[in-house]
Amino acid sequence: MQFPSPVSLQWISELINAKIIGDKNYSATGINEIHKVSKGDLVFVDHPKYYDKCINSEASYIIINKEMDAPENKAMLVVENPFEAYCTIVNHFRPFSPSSKLKSETAVIGEKSFVYPNVYIGNNVTIGKNCIIYPNVTIMDYCIIGDNVVIQAGAVIGSNAFYYNTNKNREVWYKKMPDCGRVIIEDYAEIGAGCTIDRGVSHDTIIGAGSKLDNMIHIGHDTVIGKNCLIAAQVGIAGATTLEDGVTLWGQVGVSKTLTIKKNAVVLAQSGVGGDLEAGKIYFGSPVQDARTKQKELVWVKRIPELWEKVMVLENKK
Amino acid sequence: MQFPSPVSLQWISELINAKIIGDKNYSATGINEIHKVSKGDLVFVDHPKYYDKCINSEASYIIINKEMDAPENKAMLVVENPFEAYCTIVNHFRPFSPSSKLKSETAVIGEKSFVYPNVYIGNNVTIGKNCIIYPNVTIMDYCIIGDNVVIQAGAVIGSNAFYYNTNKNREVWYKKMPDCGRVIIEDYAEIGAGCTIDRGVSHDTIIGAGSKLDNMIHIGHDTVIGKNCLIAAQVGIAGATTLEDGVTLWGQVGVSKTLTIKKNAVVLAQSGVGGDLEAGKIYFGSPVQDARTKQKELVWVKRIPELWEKVMVLENKK
Amino acid sequence: MQFPSPVSLQWISELINAKIIGDKNYSATGINEIHKVSKGDLVFVDHPKYYDKCINSEASYIIINKEMDAPENKAMLVVENPFEAYCTIVNHFRPFSPSSKLKSETAVIGEKSFVYPNVYIGNNVTIGKNCIIYPNVTIMDYCIIGDNVVIQAGAVIGSNAFYYNTNKNREVWYKKMPDCGRVIIEDYAEIGAGCTIDRGVSHDTIIGAGSKLDNMIHIGHDTVIGKNCLIAAQVGIAGATTLEDGVTLWGQVGVSKTLTIKKNAVVLAQSGVGGDLEAGKIYFGSPVQDARTKQKELVWVKRIPELWEKVMVLENKK
Repeated sequence: MQFPSPVSLQWISELINAKIIGDKNYSATGINEIHKVSKGDLVFVDHPKYYDKCINSEASYIIINKEMDAPENKAMLVVENPFEAYCTIVNHFRPFSPSSKLKSETAVIGEKSFVYPNVYIGNNVTIGKNCIIYPNVTIMDYCIIGDNVVIQAGAVIGSNAFYYNTNKNREVWYKKMPDCGRVIIEDYAEIGAGCTIDRGVSHDTIIGAGSKLDNMIHIGHDTVIGKNCLIAAQVGIAGATTLEDGVTLWGQVGVSKTLTIKKNAVVLAQSGVGGDLEAGKIYFGSPVQDARTKQKELVWVKRIPELWEKVMVLENKK
Repeated sequence: MQFPSPVSLQWISELINAKIIGDKNYSATGINEIHKVSKGDLVFVDHPKYYDKCINSEASYIIINKEMDAPENKAMLVVENPFEAYCTIVNHFRPFSPSSKLKSETAVIGEKSFVYPNVYIGNNVTIGKNCIIYPNVTIMDYCIIGDNVVIQAGAVIGSNAFYYNTNKNREVWYKKMPDCGRVIIEDYAEIGAGCTIDRGVSHDTIIGAGSKLDNMIHIGHDTVIGKNCLIAAQVGIAGATTLEDGVTLWGQVGVSKTLTIKKNAVVLAQSGVGGDLEAGKIYFGSPVQDARTKQKELVWVKRIPELWEKVMVLENKK
Repeated sequence: MQFPSPVSLQWISELINAKIIGDKNYSATGINEIHKVSKGDLVFVDHPKYYDKCINSEASYIIINKEMDAPENKAMLVVENPFEAYCTIVNHFRPFSPSSKLKSETAVIGEKSFVYPNVYIGNNVTIGKNCIIYPNVTIMDYCIIGDNVVIQAGAVIGSNAFYYNTNKNREVWYKKMPDCGRVIIEDYAEIGAGCTIDRGVSHDTIIGAGSKLDNMIHIGHDTVIGKNCLIAAQVGIAGATTLEDGVTLWGQVGVSKTLTIKKNAVVLAQSGVGGDLEAGKIYFGSPVQDARTKQKELVWVKRIPELWEKVMVLENKK
C-alpha cells in the first residue's frame, strides 16, 4: 500500500518500537511485500535466508530482526518481530473496524448501472457506468469497478488473501497477514457466477479491460489478469501471478503463484501450470507441457506394451 | 428462442435492415443457433466456413453477410453484420431492461414450497410444489422449477452463458451473445450449495427429474442432464452437452462442450471428457479412457524402469 | 445423533412398527450410521451383505429386514424397510419444519463478533467471540462456530449431505437420507469465500482449531479436519474422511471418502487421493503417489522414445 502522504521514519520507528540505523529524516511513501517494492517503500524480512534479497531490493527501508549496517541511501528499522511490525503499520493506515462498517454508505455508483437486490457493497467502493451487478454479489471495501462491467450472481470481489505467517512455534500456527490492497476490475470485464477474487495484500488484484471470466473461478491476491483474456469455468489462479493480454485458460486449469503466462498463450482444460509460459503457444497437461509434446507423450505411453513385447522377443532370441 | 407468434420476414428485414432473397411473405417461428435449429427458424452465419452448414440445416431463413441464391422453400436475409442482426432480433423479443426489474414480482410459487430469506427470485420464474429453496440462492428470470425440488444455499440458477463473439478486430475483443433461453429443473432434482447453472443461449438448460447435484457444480448453457443422474462435487460441464439418463460423474470431473455421455455411463473422479462416451461403461483419466484400459496403462508406466533394465542387459550381451 | 435422553425400545418399535427380538426394556441412546456407532446406539441395515458387519458392530440395537436371533445384550428391530424406519426416527427427533423457520431467532452470537449484512443464521446456531462473518454467508441450523473464527463472503456452512439411498426400483431412484449432524468450526479457523461445508449425516463435520481454508473448498458430510491444516483453493474432500493435524493440501486436490490423511502430510496441487496417506510425507499425482516416485515416473515417461530407439537398434543388429 501507498501511504496517504510520506511518513517520517522517526514516526514509524516510534509506532513499531524500532531502532533506526541510518538517517532518521528519511520519509517512507508506502509499505509493500518484497515482490512489489519500489523506491521509497518499507519492506520487512524476518528470515536470514531473505536478508540479502530485501536489502538489495528497490525498497528503501528494511524492517529487520538483526542489527546491521544500512546500504547507501537506505535505512534499517531493527525490531524483534518484523512481521508484527508490518501488521502494526498496515493496521494503522487501513484499520478493520467492524463498528465503522455500519456507518453511512460511501460507495459511488455510476449512471445507468443496475444493482440487483441482496448485493453487498462495502465502504469506499467505486462502480462505473452501465454496469450490471447481479443478486447476492459481495463487493468488499475499496474495490474499484470500471464501466460496462458485468458481475454475475454470487460472486465475491475483494475477499481476504489466503496469506499467513507460518511460524509454527505457537499453539495456533498461522497468523493472517493483514491485506490492504484492492480489487480493480477494468472496463468491459465480466465476472462469472460464484467467482471469488481476493484483494491484494499490499498491491492490487487486477482484472484487465475486456477480460471474460466464466463461473466459479478463483483469483488469488495481487494477481494481474491482462486485457481480453478468456478464462473458462472452475479455473484457479494463485497469488501474485501475471496473465498478459489475450491469454486463454480452459476449464479447471490450475495456475501456481508468482509466475507469468505471456501474451496470447492458450492452456487446455485441466492443465496445471507451475512455471512461466511463453507467448502464443498452446499448452496441456498436469504438469503442463507444450501441447503437441504432451499429445505425443500420450501416444508413446500407449506403445509400452508393444515395446515390452519386442524386448521379450529379443530376450528369447538370444 | 421461439417467437410468441410467427413473424413475417418482411417485418424482420426492416428491423435488421436486411435485403431479402426469396419470398417476402414467409413467416419465421423463432431464431436459434445452428446446433438447435428446426424448420421455420431463423439462423445466422457470418463466416464462409459455415455457410454450407447453415444453408443446408433445418433452418428456413438464413441471416448472412453475402448475397446468394436461396434454396427452395428458404430465404436469405443479407446484412453486413449477421451477429449484430441476431442480437437485435433477440433483444427485441427478450429485452434486458433493468428498470423493469423492480416492477411487481411476477414469480409463481407452488403450495408447501418454502423459500428461505435472502433468496432472489426473478421475473417470470415458476416454482412448483413442496420445494425448498435455501438462503442466498439466486434464480434469474424465466427459470422453471418443478415439484419437490431442493436448491441448496448460494446456488445460482440462470446465470448468463459464457458465450462470446470472438472477432478480434476491435479494441474490446469479445462481444457477449444475448441469451434468451431458460433453466428448467424437473421434479425431485436437487441442486447442491454453490452450484451455478447457466441459462440456454437459444434453447434451455435442463436438469432432469430425480437428478442429484452435489455442491459447487458448474453446468454450461443449453446443456441437458437426463433423469436420475448423480453428479459429485466440483464437476464442470461445458455448454450444449447431453448427459443421458442415469449417468454418474464423480468429483472434479470436467466435461467438454457439445458432446453426449450415454445412458448409465460412469466417469471416475478428476477425469476429463473430450468426446462422446458409450452407455453403461466406466471411464477414467484425463483425457478419459475406458477405466480398465487406463488402469492397465498406469501399471505399464510403472514397468518402464524394468523394461529399461532389460534393454541394458540386451545391449551389453551383444 | 444422540437422543435428548435414552429412549425405550418399546416406544421406538411402536414408532416404526417393528417386531422386537430381545429385551423390550432396553433403552437406546442414539441412532447412527454403521461408520460411527457406539454402545447404546441404534443402527440400520437393509442388505444381507452388511448384516454381519452391523450385528457385530458396537451398536446395541439393529433395525433389520430379516428375522434372526439377537446376540447377547443386543436386540433386533425387524421391519420391512429399515431405511424408512431410520428416516422416521431421525425426523421425529430433528424434524424439518419450514413453518418453524420463521419463528423467533434462537442463534447465540458472542461478544465482539461482527456479522455483515445479508448473512443467514439458522436456528440453534452458536457463534463465539471475536468472529467475523462476511456478507452473503449462510449458516444452517445447529452449527457451532468457535471464537476468533473468520468466514468469508458467500460461504455455506451446514448444507445437506450428498447422501442418497440408491435403490433403483422406483421411478425416482434416489431417496435422500435425512441428516441430523452439525458443522463445528473450532477457534481460530478461517473459511474462505464460497466454501461449502456439508453437515454430518449422523455425527458432525468438524474444522479443527487454527485450520485455514482458502476459497471455494468443498467439505463433505461427517469429515473431520484436524488442527492447523492448510487447504488451498478449490480442494474437494468427500464425506467421512479424516485429516489429522497439520495436513497441507494444495490447490484443486480431490480427496475421496472415508479415508485418513495422517499428521503433517502434504499433497501437491491437482492430486487425487483415493486411499490413506502416511504422516509427514509429500504426495503428488492423480492417482496420488509419493511425490518423488511420481517425479521419477514423469521422467521415465519422457525416456520411452529413447528406449524405443534402443530396441530398434537391437532388432536390426540381430
